[in-house]
This record gives sequence, C-alpha cells and structure tokens, in this order.
Amino acid sequence: MSMASEPGPELHPDMAVLEPLLGTWEGAGTGEYPTIEDFSYLESITFTHVGKPFIAYSQRTRHPDSGAPMHAETGYFRVPTTGSIEIVMAQPTGLAEIYEGAVVGGTAPLVIDVRSSSVTATPTAKEVMITERTISVTGDDLQYTFRMAAVGQPLQHHLSATLRRVVR
Amino acid sequence: MSMASEPGPELHPDMAVLEPLLGTWEGAGTGEYPTIEDFSYLESITFTHVGKPFIAYSQRTRHPDSGAPMHAETGYFRVPTTGSIEIVMAQPTGLAEIYEGAVVGGTAPLVIDVRSSSVTATPTAKEVMITERTISVTGDDLQYTFRMAAVGQPLQHHLSATLRRVVR
Repeated sequence: MSMASEPGPELHPDMAVLEPLLGTWEGAGTGEYPTIEDFSYLESITFTHVGKPFIAYSQRTRHPDSGAPMHAETGYFRVPTTGSIEIVMAQPTGLAEIYEGAVVGGTAPLVIDVRSSSVTATPTAKEVMITERTISVTGDDLQYTFRMAAVGQPLQHHLSATLRRVVR
Repeated sequence: MSMASEPGPELHPDMAVLEPLLGTWEGAGTGEYPTIEDFSYLESITFTHVGKPFIAYSQRTRHPDSGAPMHAETGYFRVPTTGSIEIVMAQPTGLAEIYEGAVVGGTAPLVIDVRSSSVTATPTAKEVMITERTISVTGDDLQYTFRMAAVGQPLQHHLSATLRRVVR
C-alpha cells in the first residue's frame, strides 16, 4: 500500500486544525443499542481536501466475517471560527445531520466534540432525534464514539471504533 | 481512459430504475441567479453502489479556465416505492437537504424530479429555502437543472449542465 500521494493543493488555513484527520483510515468498531443485537464491524474512513475551507469525509463499514457492506455516510467538516466546528452529513438510511461543536488541536491531540443541531429525515427513515460524535486523533490513531437518541430511546452510547491511518 | 471496471455486487433490485445513473460523468454547466454574476463550470459526477438499496452520489465542479475547485456535494439516492425517490444531500457550504419526488424510467429515458422537503443549515451557511432538481439520462447523456429559493429570492432557475458518461 502506497504511503505517498500526488502533491495536491495546500490546505486552506482555516482547516489547519483538522490537518491530523487527512488520509485514509482502517480499523474496527462495535455497536450496541437497546433495540438491536450487539454487533461489530470493519471500517474505512477517508478525509480529503481540495484547498477550500472544508474537508470531505466518507466512510464505509463492512461485516467482519462476510465482508458484506453495512453502513456508509458522507459529508463535510467546516471550521467557521477558531475552536468551533460544523459537520454536514448525509446517510443512506435517509438522514441528514447538521452538527455543531468544538475542536481542540494544535500541539495537543485533535479532539472534535459535536452534537446534532438538526436531524432531518426522508419519510421512510427511522426516527433519530439527537446524535453526538466525539472524534480524537493522536498521531496515526483515530478513535470515535457515537451516541444517539433514536426510536424512542434516550441519548446513549451506540458506536465506538479505533482506526489506524493507512494512507496519509 | 478505461471503460471497464472490476465486477462488483449485483445492483439491489429496488435500485433497478436508477441503473442508468451508474458510472462517472463529465461535462459542463452554467449558473445564474439575481444576486450573483453568471458563471460556467466543468463538472464530474459519480454514481456508485455496493448492492444495498441506495446509490451513492458525489460531484465536483471546477473553474473552466483555471481548473480551481468550485462546488462539491455528496449524498445518497433511495427508491422507497416504485416511482418515488428520496435524496439525502450534504453540501460543504453548510447545507443538508432532504429531497422527495418522482422517478420515471424503465424502457423510457430516466427522469428524476425532486423538491426539497427540508433544507437545514449550519449557523454560518447562506439562507436557502427551497431547492428543486430535475435529472434526465438518455443513453450516455445526462442533463440536470437546479432551481432554488435562496437569500430572499423566489424559486427560480440557478444551474443547468450536460454531461457524458466516461466510465460505466
């Protein structure tokens, strides 16, 4: 697997705090929720940029045994002011999420902590009321947790995963 | 440019009507709105699937002279019932859109006609009230138009583009 990539545009200065996200990450996670069986998954995440003031995010998970595709999601990360972050996310389950929150980085490990300000849905999507994400990056290690209030359940832990950067 | 691709999973049967979208498309478009100067752009669109009941969409535009990146967006197309379509879209400008509408295809050219049922925004995004999209595919030709009510203006034409499939 190549660790190199073609020289691209310079990262937009507003995105400097998110530079530790860039690249392709692979790892594994586990999920739980009162309404479903516990499960585990393999995951691939990519963060890319084109020099504009956003970072593009996409993710896919697959079954750890069969390799069958499980979840996917895609969106954009924005840093409107120093220390704040906005995420816009589309989910194939029929959900669109707007997140707002805080980002801490620089010389310290990167920590992103966001909560949904809106979760909108197609008529056929499951009801999701609130989602929260915490993402932390230390060197080439990325961890995240995901909490949600959905299908009548209170806000609670749903997903956690640990990934390693495989392409910078 | 290769016209072939690795054999992938079979298209989910609910997605059959959207099969004409699959592949990579390249072309050009023009934009206008009362609040801005007319502009033109080059565009690349990809529609992919993993065998699940959705099609992933991503798009990028660039300046026709400088090649500088302009817009991008990403999301998913769903067909909840025959003839209906839902689209979930994330935009790096800070907008998340849910679309609902109609799809006609089969032996006829594919025509997708959708209107936003919700447009949600981060605090720093421009105000967009309503968006409408019409996408049509005939063979290897794709055309779309985009209308919007935004920044205090009534619903009106904003974008149109014509693309040709370059990878199936």
